[in-house]
Amino acid sequence: MAVHLDTFYLDPDQDSTLQHRIKRAVVEGILSGRYRPGERMPSSRMLAKHLNISRITVTIAYTDLVADDYLVARGRSGYFVSDTAPSSPNFELPSEDSDSTFDWSRILNHRPPPASSITRPDNWQSYPYPFIYGQSDQSLFDHQNWRLCALQALGQRDFAALTLDQYERDDPKLIEYIQRNITTRRGIRARPENILVTMGAQNALWLTAQLLLTQRRIAVIENPGYRGFREILGETRCRTVEVDVDEDGLPPDKLPEQIDVVFTTPSHHSPTNASMPLERRKELLRLAGEKGFVIVEDDYEFELAFKRSPSPTLKSLDEAGCVVYIGSFSKSLFPGLRLGFMVAPTALIEQARALRSTIMRHPPWHIQRNAANFLSLGHYNAQINRMRKAYQRRRQAMEAAIEDCGLTYAVPAVSGGSCFWMKAPEGVDTEDLALALRTKGVVLEPGRSFYPPGQGPSNMYRLAYSSIATAKIPRGIELIAEEIANLD
Amino acid sequence: MAVHLDTFYLDPDQDSTLQHRIKRAVVEGILSGRYRPGERMPSSRMLAKHLNISRITVTIAYTDLVADDYLVARGRSGYFVSDTAPSSPNFELPSEDSDSTFDWSRILNHRPPPASSITRPDNWQSYPYPFIYGQSDQSLFDHQNWRLCALQALGQRDFAALTLDQYERDDPKLIEYIQRNITTRRGIRARPENILVTMGAQNALWLTAQLLLTQRRIAVIENPGYRGFREILGETRCRTVEVDVDEDGLPPDKLPEQIDVVFTTPSHHSPTNASMPLERRKELLRLAGEKGFVIVEDDYEFELAFKRSPSPTLKSLDEAGCVVYIGSFSKSLFPGLRLGFMVAPTALIEQARALRSTIMRHPPWHIQRNAANFLSLGHYNAQINRMRKAYQRRRQAMEAAIEDCGLTYAVPAVSGGSCFWMKAPEGVDTEDLALALRTKGVVLEPGRSFYPPGQGPSNMYRLAYSSIATAKIPRGIELIAEEIANLD
Repeated sequence: MAVHLDTFYLDPDQDSTLQHRIKRAVVEGILSGRYRPGERMPSSRMLAKHLNISRITVTIAYTDLVADDYLVARGRSGYFVSDTAPSSPNFELPSEDSDSTFDWSRILNHRPPPASSITRPDNWQSYPYPFIYGQSDQSLFDHQNWRLCALQALGQRDFAALTLDQYERDDPKLIEYIQRNITTRRGIRARPENILVTMGAQNALWLTAQLLLTQRRIAVIENPGYRGFREILGETRCRTVEVDVDEDGLPPDKLPEQIDVVFTTPSHHSPTNASMPLERRKELLRLAGEKGFVIVEDDYEFELAFKRSPSPTLKSLDEAGCVVYIGSFSKSLFPGLRLGFMVAPTALIEQARALRSTIMRHPPWHIQRNAANFLSLGHYNAQINRMRKAYQRRRQAMEAAIEDCGLTYAVPAVSGGSCFWMKAPEGVDTEDLALALRTKGVVLEPGRSFYPPGQGPSNMYRLAYSSIATAKIPRGIELIAEEIANLD
Repeated sequence: MAVHLDTFYLDPDQDSTLQHRIKRAVVEGILSGRYRPGERMPSSRMLAKHLNISRITVTIAYTDLVADDYLVARGRSGYFVSDTAPSSPNFELPSEDSDSTFDWSRILNHRPPPASSITRPDNWQSYPYPFIYGQSDQSLFDHQNWRLCALQALGQRDFAALTLDQYERDDPKLIEYIQRNITTRRGIRARPENILVTMGAQNALWLTAQLLLTQRRIAVIENPGYRGFREILGETRCRTVEVDVDEDGLPPDKLPEQIDVVFTTPSHHSPTNASMPLERRKELLRLAGEKGFVIVEDDYEFELAFKRSPSPTLKSLDEAGCVVYIGSFSKSLFPGLRLGFMVAPTALIEQARALRSTIMRHPPWHIQRNAANFLSLGHYNAQINRMRKAYQRRRQAMEAAIEDCGLTYAVPAVSGGSCFWMKAPEGVDTEDLALALRTKGVVLEPGRSFYPPGQGPSNMYRLAYSSIATAKIPRGIELIAEEIANLD
């Protein structure tokens, strides 16, 4: 029997080449049992004609399918479905389509619902004025070199290391680069055993919280603050104390008496972008020594300090060894990579490594080695330089437009980062503002989600410039100002 | 001033090309401050001569460094360190090198020490007879097509999706493939919202245990059993009941009265490789309905059933919707990828997705898309076919050698997988056996670590053939038999 030409159709997926689509069609035909072992395939000439494509495309696809033993070539007779072709055993599907009659609500541990995400439409990229925070700007990323570094990582030489279950280990090349070039840049002296690679800063914060907090422990977080903290602390059921920040970030004199762990973002406070002065850093460390608490320093955006030299990190001033330092490649490379790291005394790193192993073994060496190559060839530093220059231009455009339109900073613009923390007039609810602006093509983030649920002012908002082109900024800010005037 | 030729040396890292090593040397010179902005680089001719390499290699490296703004070219005057070259701010390093004076033991939550790993030397690959389990065999993997699929994933078209923080989302291409081709192959009807991608099966098991177990809950695991379970259940502090398996896997009539969750490996019991007959599967499901417990089905090696058609999965027979199905690409692709998935009713998947987001957001789309391409082009099925054939040959060689040398199966060889569960004579401690055999180039896994600490027989061992060439098998088995005779 022969496979009939009419059973052949290409899926309309425009994302793949014709060759791929032919291969997929054959593979699916074979796996689904429609094409049986020994059946003759249409000739390349006939199939090319039927699909109205070139014959060579069909021939190449067929040849690849022979290599994978889906087809066999029998000289002049043409191509046949291989007798030993991969197959997909068929089972009778369950007749019921209903999801579940089992009572899951009884057994599932109670968990808080995920935070509302009114702040960010999924299709923000199609808005002309996306003042959106934390995503990468494709146009600034050195995609070509990233791809070359991936190719190198996937080369014959490195591939063995990438395929193995590495249990608890990280890629030594990545660790070495972090140790020699990134931590030193932040004034931190670390040995390889003080460093753990994590799935982004989120994962590092989570591991740290799991190891240090219980129901009986007290954690301090900044208010307003990074929303991820609340989720993470919720997991531990610890007591959480929210301390209000001011224009210099977290004030040490406002800390409660009893503390076990302080989470802070001294470089650029999230979301206000305030930078903690040196005196406060020293005072915070003094208190940590006196009261015996741990400081978790989230240095998430240190590469983007362009207004003045970044202050020394808490970790670099930490003589007692009570600071856990957390870094991220989400801003300098891209957030989809899920790559970050933590630096801490070995007592903590050893336990974090064991916990990481239990939950997932290790971050894939595929991405660790890819990043290590990119870093060690200098592309990372070049990347930061390029971003800094672009962000500086955008920031100047932002400042000019904000002044022109008379918008108000909630915290004075200082040392860098990629956003401003803004204040609308008292009566304006920025969630209404955000919704109204979407119809005009503007995306901004209302501020309420940075405060504990149901608390905090309703007139704050964040304006980020990491994903918007400089030329779009003036009109975008103008639209915001107009809408605020409407609502006020 | 000019950069002096003598400051130039190439690190002896044989893993990189000359071009890369030159670039790295320049980048490190600039970042460390040894080469200052405006300084002239040695001419390509001079440097090539100094390093005894071709001039074109130096020229290409220099050109790349110009593109990244480390160097600038000034016509005939040559290359100079760029005035705006990336830099690395210097801080004074802390004077103390001591790790920590802070008392971490007080604040770190008590955690069990990681399991001893007497079972596997780190350098097992350099042993001539590695009867090692769970690692991939490089020689069987279609490295070339994997690399092509990576290139495709990193192409301009897909790259945007890979770089973004996707919050809770998985790559729809991977989900679609799993849904249409993998779950159906196991008789499971799932909608995309029933599937969650995880960092290997370990991560899926961990998420499930976290969501279903507390101190007040009772979990059943198989004895002997997969070691990862004990770590995972330890995290939840639930009550764990170990039920002894027999030649048909987990016996439903031995389950305790009170149960909340049963973890089982019905396809190939880990580590004995027993396959659960259909009647037991049905009885287990009946009991789950009657008593209201959840079954977590770890189908970790289903692709490797080559002796007879795999039995229908519990999930395919699960009319009530009380089964959580867990699959893995660790065996069919490779374990270093850290890619697995779970299939369950949406009530559970939604919470697992939220928990995954809190601990790490999502598995990197880099590897999700790379795998999706590999799968959808049919390489995955071809891969499984190739592995099955190779493993079948190895298995025959194993069976022949085991019979020739008179070794004893602990569980009769049945339905596939990649290992045998073996029994040495009563008096032989297989941990001694393993250590003695290492000096002869043989690696095998003693069985004690599959039982609760301090319990279980000391004469069991596992012989895997997933990482050993067929030709090595007879001599390897002979060496084991000799050593057992010595110790007996």
